Amino acid sequence: MAKADIGLVGLAVMGENLVLNMESKGFSVAVFNRTTSKVDDFMKGRGAGKKITGCKSLAELAAALSKPRKAMIMVKAGQAVDDTIEQLIGVFEPGDVIIDGGNSNYQDTFRRTAYVESKGLLFIGTGVSGGEEGALTGPSIMPGGSAAAWPLVKPVLQKIAAQEGGVPCCDWVGENGAGHFVKMVHNGIEYGDMQLITETYQLMKDVLGLSADEMAAVFEEWNKGDLGSYLVEITRDILGFKDEDGSPLVEKILDTAGQKGTGKWTGIAALEFGVPLTLIGEAVFARCLSAAKDERVAASKLFSKPARVFTGDKKAFIADLKDALYASKIVSYAQGYLLMREAAKEYSWKLNYGGIALMWRGGCIIRSTFLSKIKDAFDRKGDLSNLLLDPFFNKTVDKAQGAWRRVAAAAIANGVPAPALTSALAYFDGFRCERLPANLLQAQRDYFGAHTYERTDRKRGEFFHTNWTGHGGSTSASTYNV
Amino acid sequence: MAKADIGLVGLAVMGENLVLNMESKGFSVAVFNRTTSKVDDFMKGRGAGKKITGCKSLAELAAALSKPRKAMIMVKAGQAVDDTIEQLIGVFEPGDVIIDGGNSNYQDTFRRTAYVESKGLLFIGTGVSGGEEGALTGPSIMPGGSAAAWPLVKPVLQKIAAQEGGVPCCDWVGENGAGHFVKMVHNGIEYGDMQLITETYQLMKDVLGLSADEMAAVFEEWNKGDLGSYLVEITRDILGFKDEDGSPLVEKILDTAGQKGTGKWTGIAALEFGVPLTLIGEAVFARCLSAAKDERVAASKLFSKPARVFTGDKKAFIADLKDALYASKIVSYAQGYLLMREAAKEYSWKLNYGGIALMWRGGCIIRSTFLSKIKDAFDRKGDLSNLLLDPFFNKTVDKAQGAWRRVAAAAIANGVPAPALTSALAYFDGFRCERLPANLLQAQRDYFGAHTYERTDRKRGEFFHTNWTGHGGSTSASTYNV
Repeated sequence: MAKADIGLVGLAVMGENLVLNMESKGFSVAVFNRTTSKVDDFMKGRGAGKKITGCKSLAELAAALSKPRKAMIMVKAGQAVDDTIEQLIGVFEPGDVIIDGGNSNYQDTFRRTAYVESKGLLFIGTGVSGGEEGALTGPSIMPGGSAAAWPLVKPVLQKIAAQEGGVPCCDWVGENGAGHFVKMVHNGIEYGDMQLITETYQLMKDVLGLSADEMAAVFEEWNKGDLGSYLVEITRDILGFKDEDGSPLVEKILDTAGQKGTGKWTGIAALEFGVPLTLIGEAVFARCLSAAKDERVAASKLFSKPARVFTGDKKAFIADLKDALYASKIVSYAQGYLLMREAAKEYSWKLNYGGIALMWRGGCIIRSTFLSKIKDAFDRKGDLSNLLLDPFFNKTVDKAQGAWRRVAAAAIANGVPAPALTSALAYFDGFRCERLPANLLQAQRDYFGAHTYERTDRKRGEFFHTNWTGHGGSTSASTYNV
Repeated sequence: MAKADIGLVGLAVMGENLVLNMESKGFSVAVFNRTTSKVDDFMKGRGAGKKITGCKSLAELAAALSKPRKAMIMVKAGQAVDDTIEQLIGVFEPGDVIIDGGNSNYQDTFRRTAYVESKGLLFIGTGVSGGEEGALTGPSIMPGGSAAAWPLVKPVLQKIAAQEGGVPCCDWVGENGAGHFVKMVHNGIEYGDMQLITETYQLMKDVLGLSADEMAAVFEEWNKGDLGSYLVEITRDILGFKDEDGSPLVEKILDTAGQKGTGKWTGIAALEFGVPLTLIGEAVFARCLSAAKDERVAASKLFSKPARVFTGDKKAFIADLKDALYASKIVSYAQGYLLMREAAKEYSWKLNYGGIALMWRGGCIIRSTFLSKIKDAFDRKGDLSNLLLDPFFNKTVDKAQGAWRRVAAAAIANGVPAPALTSALAYFDGFRCERLPANLLQAQRDYFGAHTYERTDRKRGEFFHTNWTGHGGSTSASTYNV
């Protein structure tokens, strides 16, 4: 019996679809699932009649694979991944490759790469984006880990990935945790994109009073232009989807979102690296707030609602919304790229920023025409420090400023929460602000904590302390920081 | 020779001032510093002629202390604390108490409490707030750790703490990391309060064109009312402080702020606990953005500036600013209290929320008349789930709504970044929003990841999946979460 090209452990939706994807691209696959009845179900169901071998143990899986063995783990992130790795090490041999394709934390991937390598095997920690549909038809794949494993897994991963203009949406990202870090930022950006879309939806619904069908038409229109993207496209579909009674299904869905995932990690990484990832932060927090449904219902009765004051031209406001959404999206990606830059500095990764945009251009949830603009920006200037400084984005955002401010003002006047949109604007205004009020903040810190400050009329690196009150000590706070 | 009542390790500014504070309250103190020349300097300088014993080693310190020994560590948070603990364990005896008074991470305090207790000693991890000045005259002290240690350190800690209306701003917070957690939230709130003040300063300066003296007068006025607080008071002093050439010193201070501290931890904890701490998050990120001075200067030249459009009544706008600041501050504290609530649930702490407000009312950086309103709110309802639901805060914020929206709109129209103020308003609008657009977000997640959703017309806990596209599998994503 011929050995299988690759193994896959974990037959939940993503795992199943990846197997079918691999098989459809000509690879034979050996599969295993801890609850082995799932293997039977799959082999009798969607996996029937294909070059797929069902295995009832990892030893069986190891025996079914050609050498050097390659097995992809698609199980719940966390302990289950470690357990599976441990078990695979037990049945694999030096030189074999273990691939974690789940949403693992990049710090775990650092640890696992070192651990698996210490056992003589190779490790790949890879982001896989595209959800259920992408896994089946071609996801975006962001692999990192043991550099020596890349040539071994490249043929399969690049073949099953989405292809955009003949280029696979999969390339080597970097050592150890680089792949999962980039995937994490991708997911944070996804949180931001989704939040921005829902904010424009609420503004159209609650300020303009548009129906679901009217909104579907707006997203249909937007999808044809600069905002063309998978998320705008599915938003159109969702707004147009009717429940059995003929009314829009979306309005019957409960407004509480989950958030225990990679968006949170992205926010934590931003705080750790000191990168102002304000939009994604607000997007994560917006999910948390949505979850407090009962409290919100109680609060809605306690506070007066601002009168709805929209009296302008609906079409003009929809055009403003489009510009506001686009400008906010640029800010979000600028912030996400800043975070990758800082991490690359810290971990000595040589990230290919334009290449990352290309990897996201197909297959994954945030795929969009917009991403080629990012590729172009890095083609113009490989060491671009902030997307907003690129001429194209600079001009686009500058042109959108007026519309963006009108939308933010309308949200505020009407009492419609638009945390991502307004925080993006506040970031933009801070970013283009030569003089921020942090001078007062430094004075405060020096006043109460002797933290010292620098001066605009002296060179950087000279620190001053003022005895603002005339009493207290003259010792400055070198070892105690607030 | 009489033994000293308490020891103190680490003679930076906070340590020195705490020693002088203790001594002035009648306690004899033995002191040690790793760089022992600092001990000599201190004993010859500010510590001369007092009931203070200078020690050149920790063994000497141990010998100088009455039993059970109590020594407070005031060294840089991190490894230095662990090293000092290890060394103190070497010279102390079972039953002795080690107190960490630095800005330690609450998770370290969890670990250290367990470790020190495993050696038969007791551990206190305590927040100390008040900066240089507070340490000398009476700080706010938030102790947690080994419950058995509290009676031993209570006399000293409560005596050296600030006293408000005869009540010490120091009381037992809870076991293990509770003291440092509450101190961390305090610091996060401090970040928020400072950021809000700097935003109102920039709005007064850049929108209204007020001079430093005029702004000092505004803060002087504000300090007499509901906003009366240490930070408003020192802002008044700072704005009034003249450099040698007679011009306001604050305008010569560089506008780049540091942030590598507890504000960051507060944001991380909020993300970990899923609590929407948006205002503090924005305050931390605003510091990060301020640090990118060179980029901001470059960007300021690339983007057009909105015309300054303020034509209204300056006095009315200043009144609006006051209301906006107060309402935002209420949101910030509401969010901070939510975070403590979630942590208390997780760690089984019985936090006294009103008592915490009292502890912060004196001595510390965020001391304010406002805090007694929080105490009142918890007196009215001990299990208040969100400060905004308390009748007083409810009414206050509701009354301030109009002013708050006018200020946010002015900031946006004038291009003055007010991230904390606008994000607080967005949170408020989200909080009082019965129906958020998270229904669309859940539909998106179900569309691309089969994440399922709940329905408004079914009971909670029932989950639905729609095959939005008509293809793809029917397996729902139980083990794979975005």
